[in-house]
Amino acid sequence: MATHRSALFAALFSTGANALFPDCVKGPLKNNTICDASASPADRARALISLYTLEEKINATGSTAPGVPRLRIPPYEWWSEWLHGIAGPFTNFSDEGDYSYSTSFPQPILMGAAFDDQLITDVATVIATEARAFNNANRTGLDFWTPNTNPFRGQETPREDPYHLSSYVHALIKGLQGGATDPYKRVVATCKHYAGYDIESWNGNLRYQFDAQISQQDLVEYYLPPFQKCARDSNVGAFMCSYNSVNGVPTCADPYLLQTILREHWGWTNEEQWVTSDCDAVQNIYLPHEWSATREQAAADALIAGTDVNCGTYMPNHLPAAFAQGLLNETVLDQALIRQYSSLVRLGYFDPPENQPYRQLGFDAVATNASQQLAYKAVIEGIVLLKSDGFLPLSLSSSSSIGLFGDWANATDDLLGNYAGVPTYLHSPLWAVQQLNVTVNYAQGPGGQGDPTTNRWLSVWSAASASDVIIYIGGINNDVEEEGMDRGTIAWTGAQLDVLGQLAQQGKPMVVVQMGGGHIDSSPIVNNPNISALLWGDYPGQDGGVAIMDIIIGKAAPAGRLPTTQYPASYINEVPMTDMALRPGTNNPGRTYKWYNGTAVFEFGSGLHYTNFSASIASNMSATYSITDLMTTCRSSNATYPDLCSFGAPFEVEVTNTGSTASDYVTLAYLAGSFGPAPHPKKSLVALNLTLGSLARVDERGNKVLYPGDYCLLIDNQPLASVNFSLSGDQVVLDEWPQPPANRTGDGVKDFEPGYFVGGHGSDQKPVY
Amino acid sequence: MATHRSALFAALFSTGANALFPDCVKGPLKNNTICDASASPADRARALISLYTLEEKINATGSTAPGVPRLRIPPYEWWSEWLHGIAGPFTNFSDEGDYSYSTSFPQPILMGAAFDDQLITDVATVIATEARAFNNANRTGLDFWTPNTNPFRGQETPREDPYHLSSYVHALIKGLQGGATDPYKRVVATCKHYAGYDIESWNGNLRYQFDAQISQQDLVEYYLPPFQKCARDSNVGAFMCSYNSVNGVPTCADPYLLQTILREHWGWTNEEQWVTSDCDAVQNIYLPHEWSATREQAAADALIAGTDVNCGTYMPNHLPAAFAQGLLNETVLDQALIRQYSSLVRLGYFDPPENQPYRQLGFDAVATNASQQLAYKAVIEGIVLLKSDGFLPLSLSSSSSIGLFGDWANATDDLLGNYAGVPTYLHSPLWAVQQLNVTVNYAQGPGGQGDPTTNRWLSVWSAASASDVIIYIGGINNDVEEEGMDRGTIAWTGAQLDVLGQLAQQGKPMVVVQMGGGHIDSSPIVNNPNISALLWGDYPGQDGGVAIMDIIIGKAAPAGRLPTTQYPASYINEVPMTDMALRPGTNNPGRTYKWYNGTAVFEFGSGLHYTNFSASIASNMSATYSITDLMTTCRSSNATYPDLCSFGAPFEVEVTNTGSTASDYVTLAYLAGSFGPAPHPKKSLVALNLTLGSLARVDERGNKVLYPGDYCLLIDNQPLASVNFSLSGDQVVLDEWPQPPANRTGDGVKDFEPGYFVGGHGSDQKPVY
Repeated sequence: MATHRSALFAALFSTGANALFPDCVKGPLKNNTICDASASPADRARALISLYTLEEKINATGSTAPGVPRLRIPPYEWWSEWLHGIAGPFTNFSDEGDYSYSTSFPQPILMGAAFDDQLITDVATVIATEARAFNNANRTGLDFWTPNTNPFRGQETPREDPYHLSSYVHALIKGLQGGATDPYKRVVATCKHYAGYDIESWNGNLRYQFDAQISQQDLVEYYLPPFQKCARDSNVGAFMCSYNSVNGVPTCADPYLLQTILREHWGWTNEEQWVTSDCDAVQNIYLPHEWSATREQAAADALIAGTDVNCGTYMPNHLPAAFAQGLLNETVLDQALIRQYSSLVRLGYFDPPENQPYRQLGFDAVATNASQQLAYKAVIEGIVLLKSDGFLPLSLSSSSSIGLFGDWANATDDLLGNYAGVPTYLHSPLWAVQQLNVTVNYAQGPGGQGDPTTNRWLSVWSAASASDVIIYIGGINNDVEEEGMDRGTIAWTGAQLDVLGQLAQQGKPMVVVQMGGGHIDSSPIVNNPNISALLWGDYPGQDGGVAIMDIIIGKAAPAGRLPTTQYPASYINEVPMTDMALRPGTNNPGRTYKWYNGTAVFEFGSGLHYTNFSASIASNMSATYSITDLMTTCRSSNATYPDLCSFGAPFEVEVTNTGSTASDYVTLAYLAGSFGPAPHPKKSLVALNLTLGSLARVDERGNKVLYPGDYCLLIDNQPLASVNFSLSGDQVVLDEWPQPPANRTGDGVKDFEPGYFVGGHGSDQKPVY
Repeated sequence: MATHRSALFAALFSTGANALFPDCVKGPLKNNTICDASASPADRARALISLYTLEEKINATGSTAPGVPRLRIPPYEWWSEWLHGIAGPFTNFSDEGDYSYSTSFPQPILMGAAFDDQLITDVATVIATEARAFNNANRTGLDFWTPNTNPFRGQETPREDPYHLSSYVHALIKGLQGGATDPYKRVVATCKHYAGYDIESWNGNLRYQFDAQISQQDLVEYYLPPFQKCARDSNVGAFMCSYNSVNGVPTCADPYLLQTILREHWGWTNEEQWVTSDCDAVQNIYLPHEWSATREQAAADALIAGTDVNCGTYMPNHLPAAFAQGLLNETVLDQALIRQYSSLVRLGYFDPPENQPYRQLGFDAVATNASQQLAYKAVIEGIVLLKSDGFLPLSLSSSSSIGLFGDWANATDDLLGNYAGVPTYLHSPLWAVQQLNVTVNYAQGPGGQGDPTTNRWLSVWSAASASDVIIYIGGINNDVEEEGMDRGTIAWTGAQLDVLGQLAQQGKPMVVVQMGGGHIDSSPIVNNPNISALLWGDYPGQDGGVAIMDIIIGKAAPAGRLPTTQYPASYINEVPMTDMALRPGTNNPGRTYKWYNGTAVFEFGSGLHYTNFSASIASNMSATYSITDLMTTCRSSNATYPDLCSFGAPFEVEVTNTGSTASDYVTLAYLAGSFGPAPHPKKSLVALNLTLGSLARVDERGNKVLYPGDYCLLIDNQPLASVNFSLSGDQVVLDEWPQPPANRTGDGVKDFEPGYFVGGHGSDQKPVY
């Protein structure tokens, strides 16, 4: 394999085509420190860029870096994507044979429903391994712009709970990058979109110009914890700043977010760590944000603030003029390039392939039997049973006849969701039913998203009449919830509710499977006594149809939990999407299970089983703990971050299956109580090994504080067990939050006002374009 | 040809395939009155349906009518479409050769900019002729669901002025149906969507459930005049009721709109005239409108209200139960079928083909040289010159080099807009420039709608540097303004403004062409002194690229006028799309050129020329007219509708071209003045042959009233001439408006509240589904 690679390497140079890797063997760099594997990454990077002209440095700031031919530095594409498998605009699948497919896992929201960190690490390890194999064949890059770390972004994230999201991205980065002390990184992960990026296109508010007004309390309590986890606790290799502004400042031009918080407060200062802009968020600083008065100033502002890579061409295009105008000095540019090349060094980019196991990976590492089984396991763990009258699991015999309906019944590409590569196979629900020894009566329809007609309904009625059992698999898909769009309704779309109601009138056992990533109000299905069961199936990936049917027929038992609140359809009239506040307000019922004061259709964490469970907490804990004592113990451990100090021994919960069906069970633990500043959240998801940070609350300035008060640990949503304890003594600040510059908040930028801002920072000049 | 058709006819029956036409020669109907060409259409229809069973009648209510095989009545598809050429889901183009293409004209909004009624009649005649040829080949139907008669519907209508829209649809129906006394109709036209249908999907308001709250004054003054023109003055064959409700009642279930107004007040009572629902608006009466408490009731309510054809299957599906429950009687059903079959009789459907010229048409009548030239003429007449510093028309020599940019520069399908069939050819702007003897520097980009990256920009800069003249052809397209969506911004999309600004900085002569049908605020282009000219090109159809370039190089002179107000981008923040009011309100600057109290980027009627014009009004009119005298003259003419009475002799306007460039000129006349109830519109478009109706205003109850007061007739937007006169005496009601049932308006349905209504009509029962 190594021989083959070397031959390819030489051939590429001789034909003038792009080489995969720099030439450290016989090129002009062979005696430069960049090629000295014993030197530190930063020293190696510094040595390389000392050879660069200013123009060559500027050229390196774009995501499609042209390299430096005279130095045998090949072009490099920084933009690679994976969300649930390798994908994206710069991943190149071949038309057939090797490298024509890879493993396609479920969307993050479904994997999030498994509440299984090890699963996420395993999945990330598989995808990163497949990415390395594709990279070795020059079919994708080494820097992946994943995970999506925003709590509201539909199918792309495990959704609304910041602790859950933090655990998820931590587990994912571990699998993706490998261990922090490994000699080489597997690939580089990128936490995105930093920060407050939750609007796509809603009521005139476009992501490219939206200004998210977020209080320091909400930022620290809700929007930033997963990013803190990435930077401070997971050693993630890269960050991506977002399209939107936060409190008036475009994030890619914001030294407060990129320097004060990310690098200084979270200690993300390793030279191999870099920030890329979203594509092309640097341009958006100029237009439509109108933050910088000129194009050159926008490019300079981004680089100075700490954006090291510009997805797009705006920096390479405008930095020459910015330098000519004296808007920045070369040290800032060098800093960005040192970060870039240090990161590439850690990926083995400049080192001999022979010593690097990742460089030996070929297509035999892709879509293995084990990875296919993992993809199946991920769906099974994630599917959620939301309603069940005891009819499921479905017993089948050879005389059974199943009526199969809904736009997802014969789904193929829909199974994958967005950011999909080419899957190994696509098993639709229809395909899965056809593998069973039963009669299938399938009819296409009703046409859930775009088709307003009833043209296909008659065939649905006749197929239903001929069936013993009705299975309806529908909901929404990427026709209505793709990146770049926000939906205008969270009710079931099109005429689906009418068709569901008519099918239910047949009086036959009926199962509904709700697909798609975004919220849908399923209360009409919950309230219909003729519908036996409701499952939630999201975007289940390549084996989704088989997994759904295996759950329905009891070959596997459901144990997933809803990672999001299912709001009633009227919710969209109660909270403008532009309102970033979590707590309820005068005309706002609040967001997430912690704060929403209405009645959810299904609460966060909902999930039934084919059996019942009881639980007990085995604990010899005290009734009261002294905050002073807790802090003394914490300090004696020399903890850098007091919020990570352990509260004590983990709670031990014993769960018993009291029914007759074998089943997995996810132990969800919540903390509730009236401690810290009012209002108090209803409850908060925590781990059983409580940290001081998980007991803390965030004050209005963003400080994380341990408060005296009464605490209650609850097991599961309808608590199967609980235990109470108190903290006594004076409150203690665990993490003092750096305050933003005085001119940022309360800057007169109104909520909910789309359109252009007038004036740039430190200037009354409106850009001329 | 007739022989060939007969042979085909026999062959189809013998193979069991669908026949095109009923068998009046030797089938069971040959002695029925339906086959007696000397009987009246209604008698013929009555005779036919007297043979039908109830089930056969119910089957005939859906748009895909199955026919009655035992009577040799073949299936018939009521749903055919054309908007700017034959198109739609049930038009079948062959893959190659004959019937593989037809003539594709510009979108209605561009043809509307020509302000040329004869053009519209000519275009409609061509398309109807092509439709007949396709129908003779069993490739489309005879009933076309056009014209779109709503004032706000983007590219599909000539837009915002009700008089202009009325003239347009009148001219179109004339061409489409032929003369009212012709022995056969060419095809049947359908005025849609009746009424108040202006929301697609905006901020949670979906067209299927939106309730348009409209005052009687706005209805009569603005939303209904074009429909009145269709029904009362143009003998249109069909109407389509809409998805939305008006003042609480779904239009397809509304006896006030369908019976009181349409049939009784407008006298649309010819038995050959029928109403179809939008697809599947009958279902929407049940869900999501929740107007009718059951599905059966919804089907019955629609039929009873006067909906004769159900696009979809809801009536055929649910009318059997509705009859079983006694919700309606068979007379109502018979009435609908008499209308359907009377209409088919008027199309010659039951008559011998030998006597019908339309039945002789073959593919040689399609895409003729004359129709291609007409399609080109329609674009030339419609293109509007909005900004010009004198640089245009562009002089070319063989040494000229043109830089051509923008996502529309190489547009193909985009040229057509929505509801497009297969055009004869597609000539993009790039193709057109390549036919000139000049150097073309074309670069794709910037990626106006979806692509946020600057990846393609560098090639734009290098191509621009190499050029003498820069032409940018961009704007929006159906990626962001297709049916079913409303846009969230009316600014130029994506990064286009940044690219335009950078191109303008090159200091070269630069021309921008704004494409797409919806509003875009072009003020940044207007305000940029480095941009020489701005043209408006909409969706110009198959020859659009050639027409645009011919205008630019002066082979033709622009004379089109903007048929819509171009609002500033902030307008969308000032008026919710759900607010149907025309007049300004507390937080609302008003709609259309008549009422908008802000500063438009371009006013309705804007349009420059390559020359200048002066005008004078040759009039020997009085200074004052007595309303009593005017009415006496009107009554003496035995006018059925006093609003159609002439005011006197037409004004004669003499227009002089004072420049050196030959050019068409469109004489736009407006009426202004402070007559009738305040507030007063700024002005209103009128014809030069004024009618009493064109002088009238509408009061709050919807009555059309001739008021005493001071009137001013203005020629053109910046008036080239004007004349003043007064009306004296008492006001007179020209048209007394039938008031809606008392329980309709002020029924407690709030504005702007999306989501489901609770309760049906005459019932507190909420539907169970």
